[in-house]
Amino acid sequence: MASEFSLIQKYFNQTSSQVDLSIGDDAALFRVKSGYQVAISTDMLVAGTHFFEDCAPYYIGWKSLAVNVSDMAAMGAKPKWATLAIALPEVNEAWLAEFSRGFFACAEAFNVDLIGGDTTHGPLNISVTIMGEVETGKALVRSGAKAGDDIWISGVLGNAALGLQCLLKNIDLTEAEQEICLQDLYMPQPRVSLGLALSGLATSCIDVSDGLLADLSHILSASKLGADIHLDQVACLPTMKHRLQEAIVKQAVLAGGDDYELCFTAPAKNSSAIQALSEQLSLPLTCIGKITKDSTLHVFYEKQPLAINTLGYDHFA
Amino acid sequence: MASEFSLIQKYFNQTSSQVDLSIGDDAALFRVKSGYQVAISTDMLVAGTHFFEDCAPYYIGWKSLAVNVSDMAAMGAKPKWATLAIALPEVNEAWLAEFSRGFFACAEAFNVDLIGGDTTHGPLNISVTIMGEVETGKALVRSGAKAGDDIWISGVLGNAALGLQCLLKNIDLTEAEQEICLQDLYMPQPRVSLGLALSGLATSCIDVSDGLLADLSHILSASKLGADIHLDQVACLPTMKHRLQEAIVKQAVLAGGDDYELCFTAPAKNSSAIQALSEQLSLPLTCIGKITKDSTLHVFYEKQPLAINTLGYDHFA
Repeated sequence: MASEFSLIQKYFNQTSSQVDLSIGDDAALFRVKSGYQVAISTDMLVAGTHFFEDCAPYYIGWKSLAVNVSDMAAMGAKPKWATLAIALPEVNEAWLAEFSRGFFACAEAFNVDLIGGDTTHGPLNISVTIMGEVETGKALVRSGAKAGDDIWISGVLGNAALGLQCLLKNIDLTEAEQEICLQDLYMPQPRVSLGLALSGLATSCIDVSDGLLADLSHILSASKLGADIHLDQVACLPTMKHRLQEAIVKQAVLAGGDDYELCFTAPAKNSSAIQALSEQLSLPLTCIGKITKDSTLHVFYEKQPLAINTLGYDHFA
Repeated sequence: MASEFSLIQKYFNQTSSQVDLSIGDDAALFRVKSGYQVAISTDMLVAGTHFFEDCAPYYIGWKSLAVNVSDMAAMGAKPKWATLAIALPEVNEAWLAEFSRGFFACAEAFNVDLIGGDTTHGPLNISVTIMGEVETGKALVRSGAKAGDDIWISGVLGNAALGLQCLLKNIDLTEAEQEICLQDLYMPQPRVSLGLALSGLATSCIDVSDGLLADLSHILSASKLGADIHLDQVACLPTMKHRLQEAIVKQAVLAGGDDYELCFTAPAKNSSAIQALSEQLSLPLTCIGKITKDSTLHVFYEKQPLAINTLGYDHFA
């Protein structure tokens, strides 16, 4: 059987341009630009919890890096380096080849070097740690929102959750909708360019991984503020817009998670600069409400308050 | 049930002094001293592969960080920051409290700040990424060994493997031996002070995690050289010295792994400085052989060559 060392050599040892020493020693070595901070984040993906066991390994590879890249986007950091630790129930070279192809497709798309890792035996588990650079003091933290700020989201919300509900046969989607939703579920596109451009415009930022309400709540709690948002203003798949009264669609848009869009706050005076950015990046940026002083999150639909009974996904809830 | 957020808050959110932003945002932020490189390494520990399911969680906590700290020691880097991703089959607060106590005992012993993490649901899996600082160009890489260099090891080898064999009832140990071997198995002591002190003295270094022969082979292959080592010179538990002819003891000392001692090479002229360092650190440092030009690893016992049939532990062999 292939050894651990030959597996790493064969599937995970690609050329890295941003390091002094890459895979193959006790540690990798890299330098950080003067005047910059290292941003670091880690995410673990587990078969059965984060993806179906039989999910195409290309998508698992892409997504395991993409969800980490998204954390860099949410900080306004430029992703640069990643490590990958993976537990495999068996050595399935066809699976590894596809996983690796998906992982490196994402790495190349976002200019990330894989610089270290660990390969071991166990139930399928993928743990990625990502590092990036951000100019000292310029990171988009969660605690910077101010009362009166506009609340913005990028792209559309709910597609990943709708894709999942479709796989679970809980919702019917047209073939065209399915294609879009599954693509968003399997291959999220972290908003790195947006995150980098928001420095100086946004006061706080988070990526929508657990669901809009849960993630916005993190901003509110870190900033000790509240918010009023309007469900009918939240961008979603056009064909879902008229179904927003349905519990399953509402749930997907407000609390579905796995969207990896950015939710950010900015003073009203930056509104036109943000709209210009939207055009420049060809990415919808939509204002969905305002930060308030009262430390509560209110959701309105057609100007009527909605009762909120779930804030999103919690692995242990 | 406790939520993911409250678990992190309760068990993993300790004060960090070496970061600009710690746990609780999309990423942590830290700065690196000018003139220094970041050293980074990652290790994944899986129940059933790296430890028994019923192992005391305090030890799992200690060891999951210690094995990573050891990689910093092997690079001559000062460990500073770590992230922890953990998959848990259930929320067992007693288990988590003990795991966290062991993890932070190690963190405190080696001055490491836990600055990020992920807690999720799945078969028990612990993935730690560690980062440290090393003066640019001063790291102890594997590729620096020179023909004629002495080969040194710190401490004694084989205890962890003997402890494991004792747990598996494959070997009989006295109560005193058991205590020492299980302590070394459960609570390895990474040689950080030694690694830092070896800068300028050693030409290459590795930590003995997979077994002496396997790890020394990594140095030889990176340096494109060979070695002659003498089993009777390898420091081991005194009561095991006369049992070195027994296959199980020989295997433990040469290929057992999990020792987390440092194996390093140095020119003969540094021998007295290394002996002085041994006294200063109260840590045995033993010369076990020499680097040779011929690219083969030869092992001798009482001056007779030994046939080597295993190089250590490989998760997929």
